[in-house]
Amino acid sequence: MDRGRLEAFSDGVFAVAITLLALGLSVAGPGHGSLAHQLASRWPAFVAYVVSFFTVGIIWVNHHALVSNLVVVDRVLLFLNLVMLLFVVMVPFGTVTAADYLARGGFDPRVAVAVYGAVLAGMSAGFGAMFEWSLREGRTKVPVPRDQWWAARRRFVSGGLIYLAVIGLAFASAPAAFALTGTVAVYYVFERTPAVPGSRTSPSGQEPDPDA
Amino acid sequence: MDRGRLEAFSDGVFAVAITLLALGLSVAGPGHGSLAHQLASRWPAFVAYVVSFFTVGIIWVNHHALVSNLVVVDRVLLFLNLVMLLFVVMVPFGTVTAADYLARGGFDPRVAVAVYGAVLAGMSAGFGAMFEWSLREGRTKVPVPRDQWWAARRRFVSGGLIYLAVIGLAFASAPAAFALTGTVAVYYVFERTPAVPGSRTSPSGQEPDPDA
Amino acid sequence: MDRGRLEAFSDGVFAVAITLLALGLSVAGPGHGSLAHQLASRWPAFVAYVVSFFTVGIIWVNHHALVSNLVVVDRVLLFLNLVMLLFVVMVPFGTVTAADYLARGGFDPRVAVAVYGAVLAGMSAGFGAMFEWSLREGRTKVPVPRDQWWAARRRFVSGGLIYLAVIGLAFASAPAAFALTGTVAVYYVFERTPAVPGSRTSPSGQEPDPDA
Amino acid sequence: MDRGRLEAFSDGVFAVAITLLALGLSVAGPGHGSLAHQLASRWPAFVAYVVSFFTVGIIWVNHHALVSNLVVVDRVLLFLNLVMLLFVVMVPFGTVTAADYLARGGFDPRVAVAVYGAVLAGMSAGFGAMFEWSLREGRTKVPVPRDQWWAARRRFVSGGLIYLAVIGLAFASAPAAFALTGTVAVYYVFERTPAVPGSRTSPSGQEPDPDA
Repeated sequence: MDRGRLEAFSDGVFAVAITLLALGLSVAGPGHGSLAHQLASRWPAFVAYVVSFFTVGIIWVNHHALVSNLVVVDRVLLFLNLVMLLFVVMVPFGTVTAADYLARGGFDPRVAVAVYGAVLAGMSAGFGAMFEWSLREGRTKVPVPRDQWWAARRRFVSGGLIYLAVIGLAFASAPAAFALTGTVAVYYVFERTPAVPGSRTSPSGQEPDPDA
Repeated sequence: MDRGRLEAFSDGVFAVAITLLALGLSVAGPGHGSLAHQLASRWPAFVAYVVSFFTVGIIWVNHHALVSNLVVVDRVLLFLNLVMLLFVVMVPFGTVTAADYLARGGFDPRVAVAVYGAVLAGMSAGFGAMFEWSLREGRTKVPVPRDQWWAARRRFVSGGLIYLAVIGLAFASAPAAFALTGTVAVYYVFERTPAVPGSRTSPSGQEPDPDA
Repeated sequence: MDRGRLEAFSDGVFAVAITLLALGLSVAGPGHGSLAHQLASRWPAFVAYVVSFFTVGIIWVNHHALVSNLVVVDRVLLFLNLVMLLFVVMVPFGTVTAADYLARGGFDPRVAVAVYGAVLAGMSAGFGAMFEWSLREGRTKVPVPRDQWWAARRRFVSGGLIYLAVIGLAFASAPAAFALTGTVAVYYVFERTPAVPGSRTSPSGQEPDPDA
Repeated sequence: MDRGRLEAFSDGVFAVAITLLALGLSVAGPGHGSLAHQLASRWPAFVAYVVSFFTVGIIWVNHHALVSNLVVVDRVLLFLNLVMLLFVVMVPFGTVTAADYLARGGFDPRVAVAVYGAVLAGMSAGFGAMFEWSLREGRTKVPVPRDQWWAARRRFVSGGLIYLAVIGLAFASAPAAFALTGTVAVYYVFERTPAVPGSRTSPSGQEPDPDA
């Protein structure tokens, strides 16, 4: 068991991915119309940046809470963690793609937002698999009682299901589907899914650490 | 309470953001005039790089001092930290935009420097909110006495207010407003706002750590 | 002996390199045909991204297991670690090159996949040298018994040899050689080469840490 | 005193800067001549990548050794560390500039290599200042005896002086000056300047850590 480097590596990937999001903000520069106009016309990039930033930030907070509660780290978890990070790393790609096409006409915006939703759904599924792995007895310091498994899953699956809905909704209305991803981010900021139920007492939303 | 990963993630974001600043230094390359001329004409990029580097570096030092003094990390603080990082990550964007337009004519430089000031003001506001949060009793190892709250706030708010002034001043004179951001960086390098007043005795400007 | 910063620096490099892989996914953007078509025509980029992501992820897991078992860190090891990281950092370059040319005609795809194989062979050789270094008595907490050295080497050398084979095979068939790299990744995900033989009992595939 | 986050932040910056070096390797892609020719004509990029990678890697090793020996971290050191990192972050810029112009004719290659030398000289000066700061009594676990100060300085200053010589030599011969930077890297890999003299007994070239 060695949570330290799992956290260090994951934190590094989260940090780089969240920082690369801002590469999508750059304007074309001098010679492409007034700067004010360039900035104004790139409003989808700014909106998408904020939504993606908080979406990745929330996953990081949940990842943090989940991993800090683990007592066992095995190969399966390392693999599931890599799967989740595979999608975290794709978030800047999804964000730039959505932002570039969101304000355009035709079918492209729908594809772009569906891609964005698919990346977030993958990230959510990867995290859900890590959570599912952690439910087995003896893997966490503070176990989730068996009768709360379905309640806990419902909360997680609902997040993942919304992103699946985003993919479908995108083909009906790209802006509506994109707005839904923003709503999820706002919702989770104010009502974070507890990574591990039964951990309500600690002020930080985390389990009391017996090692601390 | 778990300051460790808050620090690790924040350090990662600070490190990536500060390193991405240098992407704005690259020249167009062979075929765009003599290299000496290209470098000389990009002097605003070098100046903006240095100013932004030390501005982010100072915020990192202050963040470091603030977080190392915490005894509680809750969801609100994690959220405020994310808000601050949202603007830290935008600093390379603001820096490149300011550098690209600073030596140009017309209205664009004013918009560019205003954008730069807005990013720094946001970063400053995010940090100020974290500081404000830390004032509540029991949240820091070394509490700030209540009668020093306003003195402490004044010092922080003055930093944030200067960046607000940069935004306004930019529309009068872009170079003057930009120079003001450089002055703030120089000022803070030599007279760092103590993150937590009353911590003057330690050689590192930090509180004696009871855990150490 | 100080494993901490060796791990921190290496983790940082692994994290940045694995995140930069996604830069190769970006599409040309509006005005270059339908987005669906652009995405579809870039399938090699997505395949190469997934293969490289897991290849780097597996090396990270192995690096983790190897370093956590060390009791000595000397200049030679730091140098070998740098050599390995030299190639880890080149993986995004090799991946983008392979992806850009994989679906093209002529001789270029063969060169591209050979370059990709060479980068992976270098990474594998660097890791193999670190492993070889760790075999000497007294350098690891749990030593590899001398009679298992060749078995351990065979497992490592086979990985490196396959990447050498990829280089050769690339000149016969670029797609076949590229598929071979993917097969190696899948193989190692399911059957990770134990970094240190004799460590089968621990649930995480790592040695019990006497310091823990 | 808190070395931890100084190391974490610095390691992050080193890791990102060393990884961004590889961005300079990318070829123009399909439609710009055969890939083999493109790669061959970019040999300066590969040479510059390797030289810069090991140069930054060596500074990281020395930084590691220096900081791990500190017992005091004050504002002055944090500032000197930022100055050093300011130049570390510029290394990818200097490397790409040198590589882009090295094989060209005219005066540009001389300017490019002079820029590269100036970045390395700045990095070296920043590190030298940190070393100088650490000489004062009580700042390191294992102090450097006063009669060894000049010997230690000579070794450090010689590194910095060579980079100053590179700047001058560049205007006589860009390739010779660039080759000199490579020679310095090779020299330091095999004969690392001990960050703190008197620490020869430990196998890792570091002081025995009384805390360990």
